[in-house]
Amino acid sequence: MPTVAEYAVDRLARLGIRHVFGLPGDFAFPIDDAVEEHPDLTWVVSTNELNAAYSADGYARIHGCAILSTTYGVGELSALNGVMGSKAENLPVFHLVGGPAVRLARTKRHLHHTLGDGEVGNFIPLSAASTCGWTALTPDNAVAEMERLISHAFKEMQPAYIYIPQDIAMMHVLDPEVPIATTLKPRSCLKELGSAVNSILQRIRSAKTLVVLVSYKVGRYNLTDKVQQLIEKLDCPFTATTMDRQTLPETHPQFLGLYRGAVSPPGVIETVEGADLVLNVGGCIFDDLSTGFATTNLSSDRLVTLGIHFVEIVHSSSKVQMEQHSYDPVWLEDVLDALLEIDSLPSFSSEHFPSPVLPEAPLSNMSLTYPSVLSILARFFQDGDIIVCETGTISVQMAGLTIPEGCTYMNQTLWGSIGWATPAALGVALAAPKRRVILITGDGSHQVTATELGVMGRYDVNVVCIVLNNGMYGIEAFLEKNKVVSYNDLALWEYSKIPPAMGCFTWRCCKVETNGEFEKELEEARRRLSSTYIEVVLGEKLLKPLGSFQLNHQYMVKPFTQE
Amino acid sequence: MPTVAEYAVDRLARLGIRHVFGLPGDFAFPIDDAVEEHPDLTWVVSTNELNAAYSADGYARIHGCAILSTTYGVGELSALNGVMGSKAENLPVFHLVGGPAVRLARTKRHLHHTLGDGEVGNFIPLSAASTCGWTALTPDNAVAEMERLISHAFKEMQPAYIYIPQDIAMMHVLDPEVPIATTLKPRSCLKELGSAVNSILQRIRSAKTLVVLVSYKVGRYNLTDKVQQLIEKLDCPFTATTMDRQTLPETHPQFLGLYRGAVSPPGVIETVEGADLVLNVGGCIFDDLSTGFATTNLSSDRLVTLGIHFVEIVHSSSKVQMEQHSYDPVWLEDVLDALLEIDSLPSFSSEHFPSPVLPEAPLSNMSLTYPSVLSILARFFQDGDIIVCETGTISVQMAGLTIPEGCTYMNQTLWGSIGWATPAALGVALAAPKRRVILITGDGSHQVTATELGVMGRYDVNVVCIVLNNGMYGIEAFLEKNKVVSYNDLALWEYSKIPPAMGCFTWRCCKVETNGEFEKELEEARRRLSSTYIEVVLGEKLLKPLGSFQLNHQYMVKPFTQE
Ligand SMILES: Cc1ncc(C[n+]2csc(CCOP(=O)(O)OP(=O)(O)O)c2C)c(N)n1
Ligand SMILES: Cc1ncc(C[n+]2csc(CCOP(=O)(O)OP(=O)(O)O)c2C)c(N)n1
Repeated sequence: MPTVAEYAVDRLARLGIRHVFGLPGDFAFPIDDAVEEHPDLTWVVSTNELNAAYSADGYARIHGCAILSTTYGVGELSALNGVMGSKAENLPVFHLVGGPAVRLARTKRHLHHTLGDGEVGNFIPLSAASTCGWTALTPDNAVAEMERLISHAFKEMQPAYIYIPQDIAMMHVLDPEVPIATTLKPRSCLKELGSAVNSILQRIRSAKTLVVLVSYKVGRYNLTDKVQQLIEKLDCPFTATTMDRQTLPETHPQFLGLYRGAVSPPGVIETVEGADLVLNVGGCIFDDLSTGFATTNLSSDRLVTLGIHFVEIVHSSSKVQMEQHSYDPVWLEDVLDALLEIDSLPSFSSEHFPSPVLPEAPLSNMSLTYPSVLSILARFFQDGDIIVCETGTISVQMAGLTIPEGCTYMNQTLWGSIGWATPAALGVALAAPKRRVILITGDGSHQVTATELGVMGRYDVNVVCIVLNNGMYGIEAFLEKNKVVSYNDLALWEYSKIPPAMGCFTWRCCKVETNGEFEKELEEARRRLSSTYIEVVLGEKLLKPLGSFQLNHQYMVKPFTQE
Repeated sequence: MPTVAEYAVDRLARLGIRHVFGLPGDFAFPIDDAVEEHPDLTWVVSTNELNAAYSADGYARIHGCAILSTTYGVGELSALNGVMGSKAENLPVFHLVGGPAVRLARTKRHLHHTLGDGEVGNFIPLSAASTCGWTALTPDNAVAEMERLISHAFKEMQPAYIYIPQDIAMMHVLDPEVPIATTLKPRSCLKELGSAVNSILQRIRSAKTLVVLVSYKVGRYNLTDKVQQLIEKLDCPFTATTMDRQTLPETHPQFLGLYRGAVSPPGVIETVEGADLVLNVGGCIFDDLSTGFATTNLSSDRLVTLGIHFVEIVHSSSKVQMEQHSYDPVWLEDVLDALLEIDSLPSFSSEHFPSPVLPEAPLSNMSLTYPSVLSILARFFQDGDIIVCETGTISVQMAGLTIPEGCTYMNQTLWGSIGWATPAALGVALAAPKRRVILITGDGSHQVTATELGVMGRYDVNVVCIVLNNGMYGIEAFLEKNKVVSYNDLALWEYSKIPPAMGCFTWRCCKVETNGEFEKELEEARRRLSSTYIEVVLGEKLLKPLGSFQLNHQYMVKPFTQE
């Protein structure tokens, strides 16, 4: 008969998870031991809990879900920002936390990792806020609660919080062999579904021009193939915002290019905003950074949103009146199945777009700049690569590059917490051991979580780490019209000396200053079986700054009358 | 006329604060600029927000308060665990956070650093939970709210959260010249105070033996001198738990030694638990780790608690009945003033205790062990030193050492979040530039926050960093009866190569393996004007493990019938 801790850990392992990220702690020992002793699980001990949360986030981006294990109070709260990022970006990370024994809690004794007020429940609501649901396990609720929480996490594609007091964790689960209501798949209301599909069809049939917008959520819910089929059946152009990019291959002939408001490639904005109908599949949210600083302009009566579990249609009955219809619960998968079954779907026989040409190769002996870095990377990426790109100047720049076929691109676009990429790359590499993982990060972001390099070394993952050294928080200077302020400067590290100091003895670590050197090191990295760490010294540290009009548009810091 | 951001920052600077710890972020630019441009403030840019919170915590331990500045969502949540530690350990850290413009928030546009739900208020309650109070500033409330919050933070000696939307931050404060109700000092109810003092006196007069317990809160509220006067007037022995140690000098002749339950030095437990009356001054909370794993046994009818703002007395009217009297609000300062004014206070003419002798000096050519490290450190510490000691095996060991006169000892005993000490030492060093700061940390803890070494280098502080390398989370193995588990192992760093890789070029960095080498390097460190970093390789990695009786007593993981 398993203990509560063993049961919970094993139930999660049965989701196919193979690695657990986190740090041990005394109240969590029973959970820590259950992980240690599980035949299918490997402990990945992070240097700190925030890094562990980021690694779990990266792992879930490949595997579909992940386990994070931290200790009461100090551990779980350190992880909070990372787990909140997984909530914002729809990744089901199961956060296991071990707390003080319930009978110890009842004594009101003052325990370490508490506020000294005799309360042990203070932090549950805080950790729970970074998830879509939580539970405190007991011997008699463990089986049912694990099913409930797992179903819920996959329904919302968000983290879940599982709290286990130390004594409870060591007790035996009651009735684990009772047949359990296995994880429920959410279902549509059939009447709502029927009406929704009818309305969608009507709108599709009455449109002369149609563009499909594909949200990243389509990928999270594993609906990519069906969406691609639908798009191919409709033979219409499709697009995506920066956040949603790469759900379908960007080399697809129907791919229009990224829809990024004022900074879209030529022609895209006209095609999207001029279409009779835009099908927003998955429910793209048009966040500010994905849309050229919130410069999209799509009138809502041309938009039909096929959300993950709802459909929303606006009818303009007259010039001044808009009527909004919502169908709920209507699951996207059911809508796609219904649409794909219809033989008489119109075909829009759109023009097909040629794959964009690569930017020109930079001169070998010149010093590195953001455009030259981009051009070199464009040639380097290949089928099978996973690119983990940090928030900063580079993520803004990468939006201008087409990602090659078979190559996966990841960026924390909505949450945008710097430091995410380095530990996330570790999680990704463990989840996809046969693929080539390429981490691209600014120096400021890298400093946030660089201690995780030692963990990469310890667990022997193979990552190409590219650290862009401009000595500052460059994107911030850019957003401030390149104003010179001390708070955007960094401590000046000798980056290539960091991995060996953290025990990564088999890594190739180097520093490049010209385009040619960078290209040579990348070629070398491609051949190697162990990690490579390339410090890229930028000759030109900053981009052309953002103008005050854009700044004000982005932040709305000034009243409109003053513009 | 100052802007709201300028006003808030300047008001805090007027508390004498000279350094601001944190990271910039776009929504916080107006605050970041106000700090940058303030003549009396220096920006200390941390590598990440958790580290910044720990540095602010350390700064507040010396200076009495501190400023932490982070950006909306991603920044503030990363700092949460650190700020919660300051709440648990009574340190007023002012946490400034810049959020999206209110008029931007009102558009419900989907912004970066949000959950993509159109809400910007999601994180305020989470950050606020790590403080004793919060405010969202506006041009017309800024003056009054800053006074309210500052008063409150100093009353509770806990952090406060100050949220400023980006547009508000740039607006001008209304009426900053209006005479403001300056920070209020909390006052006792005179009737309650009178009764409380009478009851205390009665108990003191009827006691034959008296011991004073001094809480660390006495130091936080700046009442050390008055408490020392009272103790000297009463001429009674005084003691402290590990958490409370060093509020009064441990070399004082009336100091009994630390009261740590079952692990107290000989005689202490008998004197304390056998006394007719124990005056708990400041309200020591007897947390588990401070009291030898919760093994104190003080009957509450012999205890009179002089809390910071209340007095609590238990009368045993008969063998089975206890009556508890509470007086509130009664401020400790008023109680002390009242008691010190009384000429007829009894004197207990207690025996005076000799200063404990130093442990024996270890053999020079032997490899290092915890006892030998302790003995070497005991000889090294001197008047003026500030010891910043991390949670772990070393903090347990340090409890056995008397801290020399004039030397300040710091440890995060209650919150016990590993990683605290390294950034805290930076904060301490900036707050006390003329004193010698000595950081002592285990390797596992150091890895949590080691990126802050580069920041120490950048701001040129002088710290002696001692990193105890046993290659594992030793205290955890100890608590688990030295069980061998992979999750207590660490990535093996070459610690002494870390500071130069992070830009600390003037530091002396070395690795020692024998007692003699360690002693020599410490001597050298004492002479230097720039930092020293000593990796101490431990020959004996672990202490004798904790037995199962103690383990069970500490954690109460087994029902009592099974013991
Ligand atoms: C945790 C967190 N703290 C602060 C910020 C604000 N921020 C956004 S980008 C950035 C600077 C990134 O600098 P770097 O990685 O060096 O990239 P660069 O733009 O210079 O290439 C900062 C501090 C953030 N997004 N996340
Ligand atoms: C943030 C946080 N995470 C986890 C823990 C649990 N914990 C307590 S002590 C410890 C190990 C400390 O190891 P080290 O610093 O190497 O010291 P040692 O005892 O080996 O000398 C851990 C992981 C904690 N207290 N705080």
